[in-house]
Amino acid sequence: MLSTTKRTEINKGQHKAVFDPEQLNAIIDESLIAHIGIHSTNGPIVIPMLAWRVDNHVYIHGANNSRLMRDLKKGEQTCLTFTLFDGWVLARSAFHHSAHYRSAVVFGGFEQVEEKEEKDRVLNHFVEHIAPGRTQHVRLSNDKELAATMVLKLPLTEASVKISNFGVNDDKSDLDLPAWAGVLPYRTVVGPLEPVEASTHLPEPDYSTAYGKRWHNR
Amino acid sequence: MLSTTKRTEINKGQHKAVFDPEQLNAIIDESLIAHIGIHSTNGPIVIPMLAWRVDNHVYIHGANNSRLMRDLKKGEQTCLTFTLFDGWVLARSAFHHSAHYRSAVVFGGFEQVEEKEEKDRVLNHFVEHIAPGRTQHVRLSNDKELAATMVLKLPLTEASVKISNFGVNDDKSDLDLPAWAGVLPYRTVVGPLEPVEASTHLPEPDYSTAYGKRWHNR
Repeated sequence: MLSTTKRTEINKGQHKAVFDPEQLNAIIDESLIAHIGIHSTNGPIVIPMLAWRVDNHVYIHGANNSRLMRDLKKGEQTCLTFTLFDGWVLARSAFHHSAHYRSAVVFGGFEQVEEKEEKDRVLNHFVEHIAPGRTQHVRLSNDKELAATMVLKLPLTEASVKISNFGVNDDKSDLDLPAWAGVLPYRTVVGPLEPVEASTHLPEPDYSTAYGKRWHNR
Repeated sequence: MLSTTKRTEINKGQHKAVFDPEQLNAIIDESLIAHIGIHSTNGPIVIPMLAWRVDNHVYIHGANNSRLMRDLKKGEQTCLTFTLFDGWVLARSAFHHSAHYRSAVVFGGFEQVEEKEEKDRVLNHFVEHIAPGRTQHVRLSNDKELAATMVLKLPLTEASVKISNFGVNDDKSDLDLPAWAGVLPYRTVVGPLEPVEASTHLPEPDYSTAYGKRWHNR
């Protein structure tokens, strides 16, 4: 169970709050992008970054000389937000229109992954997450590449999750209006693979297992 | 042309920087969600909110009694980030894997839309953005509903845009590896509409014009 802290307490829409860590993991795994909040003297800055999970940590990576990475590795408190938009709820009144979404807000401070083998392991985990089996297909990172890459991790200990997947909620007095009501779903479809010219003669790898029904066959 | 300020200057990946305001508008219009950064005494907080554009402003809305909305209406500097993930670039080395994405980072302070007619106009604009023609199909907001809704606006004057849509960038020494290289595209597909039981006998509205090729017919 995700525990509630002062920062993760949900004030509005408590019926959307979810406390199952598996749901948190699923949202992070599907999102790919974390929106990361940082302080600056000119106000807050929100930066989108690729983020992936291994067990109970979330990881980001970047160039060793990136100012953002150097700031984040100091370990100051930050916030990573993951959001998946699933569609519109089209009610009979403009007022009751709403959205289907899943979101996770994670708080904490980053810590640098210093050890080369550990860096290599979590980076390969990311490649496998995107394209299962791909670490067997490509040239893996060498020492120079690993040294040029900074990897930061943050524990998934303080987080809140909201899932909004409710049906149409109309005022009783609107139910007899001749207005069509329902849901307009949004889905992410992945694939088909688009080879570079030089790869058109190579057998196409099968990365569909990572995407299930979201995979789009040619 | 979007102008560069201290906050919008892009340090890394300058080849991805875009200064065409039409591209900024397109990213906001397609994103639907803004990740908004706010300061708190416990560190930054990033909240996903529905956001839409009318001309040169971006709008958000929420309940009048929402703590977040009350905080944002004070007009302190904030940051709204919009991100669309378009796919993976699968290179022949793990190191050169990268992402296709479009993102916009907007800075400024919110201002409350006080006037009822203006609130009504921009809220209806949002409904039309989601589902063109729908303001003719549904009951529009009454005075009580408008009074319960807070609308905030922020001018699109300070923003940076990054678009990454480049092909595979491999080291020359890797080009002869027998590794498949190319792009794994991600697309958002919208529809088909899912009616509530009571609407199954009503003619289905056509909202596909807002989505073009992204619309999924049954």
